[in-house]
Amino acid sequence: MKFLIIGGDAAGMSAASRAKRNDPGIDVTVLEKTEDVSYSACGMPYNIADSEREIDDLVVRQADVFREKQDINLLTGHCVESIDTVKGIVTGAGTDGSEFSFPYNRLLIATGASPVIPELPGFDMPGVMALKSLADGRRIRKYLKENNVRRAVIIGMGYIGLEMCEALRTRSIEVDMVKPGPGFLPWMREELSSVIREEVASHNTRLYPGHKIFKIESEEDCLKIICDGITLETDMVLVAIGVKPNSKIAKEAGIDLGLHEAIAVDRSLGTSVSNIYSAGDCADAFHVVTGERAWIPLALRANRAGWAVADNVCGKEVELPGIAGTAVFKIFNLEVARTGLSAEEAARSGFDPEEVVIKTRSRAHAHPGSTSIRIQMTGDRKSGRLLGCRMVGKEGVAHRINAAAVALHCKMTVQEFFQADLAYAPPFSPVWDPLLTAANQLLKKVGGK
Amino acid sequence: MKFLIIGGDAAGMSAASRAKRNDPGIDVTVLEKTEDVSYSACGMPYNIADSEREIDDLVVRQADVFREKQDINLLTGHCVESIDTVKGIVTGAGTDGSEFSFPYNRLLIATGASPVIPELPGFDMPGVMALKSLADGRRIRKYLKENNVRRAVIIGMGYIGLEMCEALRTRSIEVDMVKPGPGFLPWMREELSSVIREEVASHNTRLYPGHKIFKIESEEDCLKIICDGITLETDMVLVAIGVKPNSKIAKEAGIDLGLHEAIAVDRSLGTSVSNIYSAGDCADAFHVVTGERAWIPLALRANRAGWAVADNVCGKEVELPGIAGTAVFKIFNLEVARTGLSAEEAARSGFDPEEVVIKTRSRAHAHPGSTSIRIQMTGDRKSGRLLGCRMVGKEGVAHRINAAAVALHCKMTVQEFFQADLAYAPPFSPVWDPLLTAANQLLKKVGGK
Repeated sequence: MKFLIIGGDAAGMSAASRAKRNDPGIDVTVLEKTEDVSYSACGMPYNIADSEREIDDLVVRQADVFREKQDINLLTGHCVESIDTVKGIVTGAGTDGSEFSFPYNRLLIATGASPVIPELPGFDMPGVMALKSLADGRRIRKYLKENNVRRAVIIGMGYIGLEMCEALRTRSIEVDMVKPGPGFLPWMREELSSVIREEVASHNTRLYPGHKIFKIESEEDCLKIICDGITLETDMVLVAIGVKPNSKIAKEAGIDLGLHEAIAVDRSLGTSVSNIYSAGDCADAFHVVTGERAWIPLALRANRAGWAVADNVCGKEVELPGIAGTAVFKIFNLEVARTGLSAEEAARSGFDPEEVVIKTRSRAHAHPGSTSIRIQMTGDRKSGRLLGCRMVGKEGVAHRINAAAVALHCKMTVQEFFQADLAYAPPFSPVWDPLLTAANQLLKKVGGK
Repeated sequence: MKFLIIGGDAAGMSAASRAKRNDPGIDVTVLEKTEDVSYSACGMPYNIADSEREIDDLVVRQADVFREKQDINLLTGHCVESIDTVKGIVTGAGTDGSEFSFPYNRLLIATGASPVIPELPGFDMPGVMALKSLADGRRIRKYLKENNVRRAVIIGMGYIGLEMCEALRTRSIEVDMVKPGPGFLPWMREELSSVIREEVASHNTRLYPGHKIFKIESEEDCLKIICDGITLETDMVLVAIGVKPNSKIAKEAGIDLGLHEAIAVDRSLGTSVSNIYSAGDCADAFHVVTGERAWIPLALRANRAGWAVADNVCGKEVELPGIAGTAVFKIFNLEVARTGLSAEEAARSGFDPEEVVIKTRSRAHAHPGSTSIRIQMTGDRKSGRLLGCRMVGKEGVAHRINAAAVALHCKMTVQEFFQADLAYAPPFSPVWDPLLTAANQLLKKVGGK
């Protein structure tokens, strides 16, 4: 059995390792276009924040360990260009220009995602960078070190942009953030996003939402970002306006794509072509709340899907229930978390949503050090189901969201969730956990079912 | 409709307030034997830790607010002595010696629990105290202030004993802890409890488990606790070996008691006698994992049950699913949490349990500041169900337990729980959340179902 994997990051290497654990006799080949495999991509902003560290600290397992200890035929510098799904052959070119082709019995496409770079003048200049691969992280670290960067502009205000904002501010670099869209974190309600906006602003970062970007120009001693209404001068630009799935070779091979051009997979991670699987940031998933396809590329799903592909390749018949869209990030002193749908998203999926926003204490009455937690919670009036939750606070947010995520997996009603026996001690929450307080308010709108 | 409530703490006052919100016309009388109502009992150790505070900081709502703003006939200093369930009359005596009697249409017994005090010589001496009521807290604060306490002995090593250990150490009081039983936190595995034991010992507290206590003697300048094998000299003694339900008047009225002599209630909080409800620390509950009766007196359940009684009294027909036994406490720099059953408890309830203990990082690979989280997770081999979880660590424990608690409410299998889409960001967890890592290990023992 020849199990061929395109892509050596989270999904690809998880699949490779697990396949060899499942069946030491299986022939596993991984084709990775870069020189880097198995690293903590999400750790890059925190690594970049510290001028004393090396980007390679983030490598979880060296390529040679996969090769020598795990007997995986791991080939870096191998860029796949096409898949012949009839003959079962993958072809491409090495970084040295040599051509290669590999036959497969089972193929995993784990090509990941790439940063979206606007097709505008100046975005290909030195000093204009994105952050997705370890090579990107290496490039940013090098640029910061060699160019005495004092000012940076981040284009985009999503979680990578915000994490990088904190990283650069930690290195005392001035940060401006700009984006074309008007809203700041538009996937949450103003009552929550305004708290984050204030936190960012209080760390001497200027935010310019709602400014269309025209071009970047290079002056003698700076880069100029020419936007509608403003021009920002800076030493470097980080482009963080989102990612797109690397699905081109899959599309050209006739494999079905779904939402956002991500590779469409079933619950077994199979694509529309037999014997070809996809996992990681290039593939979609089913959403446990809507039951519909969703493309929310995150690390846990990539690892989980890689494992599931390996299990299926080895004959285990595994199906994944899907994702709840659970995510968390830290921005300065705030924790921001989400799972499931907002009312706006829920309405688009055919629910009859109601939503509440509450503000509670993070600790018990009269307990010192208490701060605020704000929760936006969404439920369905027809079924009474809990649909989603967003949360912001200085403490008790990152892990608290998981209770709601589990509830979404179980399709709990708001009423049932409100009855959950959650933990209480004065340093950690009020007697009624903030999640329960939100559920109780929401219950008044969706009714007990 | 005359709704009479015996006991003005969490369950009683929750019921009183909610009944008036449900139906402003209802006649609500509360008979409370002490002078204190509506306070954060769980906050007492943290209050006592700070010599500058007052115990009354813990009062959530003053008695007069209930009387004047909420039109509740709240009578403090009213100790109920008997219930005539045939005539529907409650009688007792006031602190001034006067007798009283009140008729009811619906009665709530919310008499709470009392500390267990060993019937041994010397336990009634000044300086030997327990901590349950606000009056207890007041007494301890007063004793600490007036007696220049430098040394304390805590009898018992449960969570109240441990919280009080931290409180007294914060005030630079030397602490010895002693108990007759041999184990330290025997409801968790040694791999977890040893971490807590080391944390306590590292804060200059001496632990003496396995020493039977014979008596307390008063010397000129100290109290002496005479135990099997050791004698401890101290300035004060805190007795924290557990609580017992205040169910005597219920029993004498012919109401059925259950486990540990707690008042047995159905899912509507009704007792064996019609029109009489019970809620709070004096009443039992159904356990969502076993489906059996359990007596785990905790604050959230008391509040929740109080509300449910009020709803039922007002004709809403509410049933509570029950408790998962979720609890958390802080001890110095550790968070300790539990939900559901250990393997030992599960075996007693007829399950075929398997258990794993794992140690993981609290943060992602290479993320600074990571500490250890230890998890004990239990599942059932027959059904594949998740049965319980215990956790210890310096961060990420208190709120993380709630995801497992929700899973217990939903009767998730270990397999299903392992598929939950939990949040990940490097400052908060590894890619695979510690709960998922534990579930994955447990899955190998209980099998995928």
